[in-house]
Amino acid sequence: MNDDACRIVTLTTDFGQKDPYVGVVKGIILSRFPQAQIIDLNHEIPPFDILAAAWSLKISIPYFKAGTIHIAVVDPRVGTSQRRIALEMNECIILAPDNGLTTPFIASAKKAYALEKPQFFLSSVSKTFHARDVFAPVAVRLLSGIALRDLAVEVDKQSLTKVEGLEPTVEPGSIEGLIVYVDRYGNLITNICAETKSQIKEIRIGSRKLKLAAGSYGTIDDGEAQVLCGSHGYLEIAAKEASAQDLLQVKSGEKVFVTTV
Amino acid sequence: MNDDACRIVTLTTDFGQKDPYVGVVKGIILSRFPQAQIIDLNHEIPPFDILAAAWSLKISIPYFKAGTIHIAVVDPRVGTSQRRIALEMNECIILAPDNGLTTPFIASAKKAYALEKPQFFLSSVSKTFHARDVFAPVAVRLLSGIALRDLAVEVDKQSLTKVEGLEPTVEPGSIEGLIVYVDRYGNLITNICAETKSQIKEIRIGSRKLKLAAGSYGTIDDGEAQVLCGSHGYLEIAAKEASAQDLLQVKSGEKVFVTTV
Amino acid sequence: MNDDACRIVTLTTDFGQKDPYVGVVKGIILSRFPQAQIIDLNHEIPPFDILAAAWSLKISIPYFKAGTIHIAVVDPRVGTSQRRIALEMNECIILAPDNGLTTPFIASAKKAYALEKPQFFLSSVSKTFHARDVFAPVAVRLLSGIALRDLAVEVDKQSLTKVEGLEPTVEPGSIEGLIVYVDRYGNLITNICAETKSQIKEIRIGSRKLKLAAGSYGTIDDGEAQVLCGSHGYLEIAAKEASAQDLLQVKSGEKVFVTTV
Repeated sequence: MNDDACRIVTLTTDFGQKDPYVGVVKGIILSRFPQAQIIDLNHEIPPFDILAAAWSLKISIPYFKAGTIHIAVVDPRVGTSQRRIALEMNECIILAPDNGLTTPFIASAKKAYALEKPQFFLSSVSKTFHARDVFAPVAVRLLSGIALRDLAVEVDKQSLTKVEGLEPTVEPGSIEGLIVYVDRYGNLITNICAETKSQIKEIRIGSRKLKLAAGSYGTIDDGEAQVLCGSHGYLEIAAKEASAQDLLQVKSGEKVFVTTV
Repeated sequence: MNDDACRIVTLTTDFGQKDPYVGVVKGIILSRFPQAQIIDLNHEIPPFDILAAAWSLKISIPYFKAGTIHIAVVDPRVGTSQRRIALEMNECIILAPDNGLTTPFIASAKKAYALEKPQFFLSSVSKTFHARDVFAPVAVRLLSGIALRDLAVEVDKQSLTKVEGLEPTVEPGSIEGLIVYVDRYGNLITNICAETKSQIKEIRIGSRKLKLAAGSYGTIDDGEAQVLCGSHGYLEIAAKEASAQDLLQVKSGEKVFVTTV
Repeated sequence: MNDDACRIVTLTTDFGQKDPYVGVVKGIILSRFPQAQIIDLNHEIPPFDILAAAWSLKISIPYFKAGTIHIAVVDPRVGTSQRRIALEMNECIILAPDNGLTTPFIASAKKAYALEKPQFFLSSVSKTFHARDVFAPVAVRLLSGIALRDLAVEVDKQSLTKVEGLEPTVEPGSIEGLIVYVDRYGNLITNICAETKSQIKEIRIGSRKLKLAAGSYGTIDDGEAQVLCGSHGYLEIAAKEASAQDLLQVKSGEKVFVTTV
């Protein structure tokens, strides 16, 4: 076995932490490939929120080394005719249902595959738990050195399902974006690039104008929700030791309007 | 050291994730046996809910490879005269308090032991944290290759405490089961075998009749709670992108009545 | 590489589990040092609650073996001029912002350092996510065998920020302590040593007198909140299969008064 091989597998799901579902997926992988290093990326994606999961992947994947396998399962339509897919990127492989989860990665994917060779799944595949029955065993084969082209059937990447909302609408003098993610602190994370901040003339959420913070959370005026450059490279609406979501009473999907100089 | 040895230890507790208790248990194990692979099976068992923990173990353990050590601690009576036990199964070892947690495994256990040799515990055993002081150090000895018979005292497996409710009452033409587990999505998981589905004439929860879903979650009629074959091999009452628990306003322990053809 | 070297890194944060922030920190570490063993000590510290985090560290660190690296990040002032520090203890290294998190460890620290050599951070350091950009890469250097004195600048440990409330006020015949931590079960953990229990004449929280429990949780009278010796070595107010916090309607920071014989 190649000692320098990457054996990291990340998991992004809406399974939550209250059930043994995540542990069973890890059991499948570590029982078959003990050298795997499994990292929980996110299990608290709001149930069925494909946009939040796609966003979570988008801001996280760049921090993992080449060769990492990312499993992402937010799958309200599990067990229907929906495909299970694999994206071969320059630096990683992403396994997911074909429901838009992989939207941020399709443009730069080298190849796309459909997982439809049951000999690489668990011997009995349930209709409702493909993370355990399909994605985990396929990840084990990949860790073992089997190539994706041998495990799956290549498909046209243009045929993959996409979700709307990950990219803002940019026009001369204006940007229309939205809140794509709300984190534990109540920070409202937009899909508008942080570099935009220096060009903002006015920024609104709904009809409410927002001020720009000078720097990080500590520089926000008490009791206000203000705009700063988030650590993931996007504009973020935050409060000082408080929740911007509570202050503004908005949620994921809310539109953000910017006029630029 | 045998390179093929299984070094997986799973943890099932009601400790939750908000405190450092689980991390300390892992610290004990990894500080003494760095090759251990610890998997969180479930830490969000409702506090003191022994039935839910027994169920969580029952549906999870089959997915782990031979040699796995399962530690299960939901223990409202910790520090009383209650025994700490170990079950030697064909494929694994289960460490738990003797309060019914191991009910699903007693019938097929090869041997049962009581953990009562303090030389294998932490030097100071608290009255309230036996996962740290007793079960983790015993798991370390097992990982190190010490046999259970040397670590513990064999007891009659018929003497172990059992909980009611894991098995339904099956009679000719009828089955009376119950909801044993409610998962994050609000799926109501019963203790009635999924194979029963094809023989159902009528299924009720309380006085309410339920329809059978054609297939998986995606095939359930909008706004209804219907019955499908869950991924763990048991009948499950679920809704489509919604919570069956919210729709039906029932909870764990509720009875489910089936008449069969 | 030294096979006996400790490669344990623990994480204590208020990041919660609902976002990919913890997973990204792990990705940084495992992508650069695959042999690391990362243990989640606590990610559910109440947002910005430095006292709870300091307490969580205090009761957990003794259970980890020599050489462990502890990263602690509860950091409402991230991105201001506040220092990032490292404490060199006899048995471990603690990395944290200089905001009081390390209070319980300053007295016995061998040396203190400020992390201010950007060549050891990620190439681009955000203003809001130093766990990822500063602490994780510094931990990687430590795991790789680089000495703290080469990674950081020594500072006077007396210059470090401290928080109040970790130590009770002990006078002849009386102790005034407080609730420093409330755990998942609603147990109210005080900062008063468990050894005190045998000398208690009266113990009050606010104006309410509390009874002493005979032993562990199982010995508490039904429906009452009583005082026992917690597993961490401190007096704890608990209830039997119930939440002492709910019964008493108090929260972290509440004062506890003891008169001693």
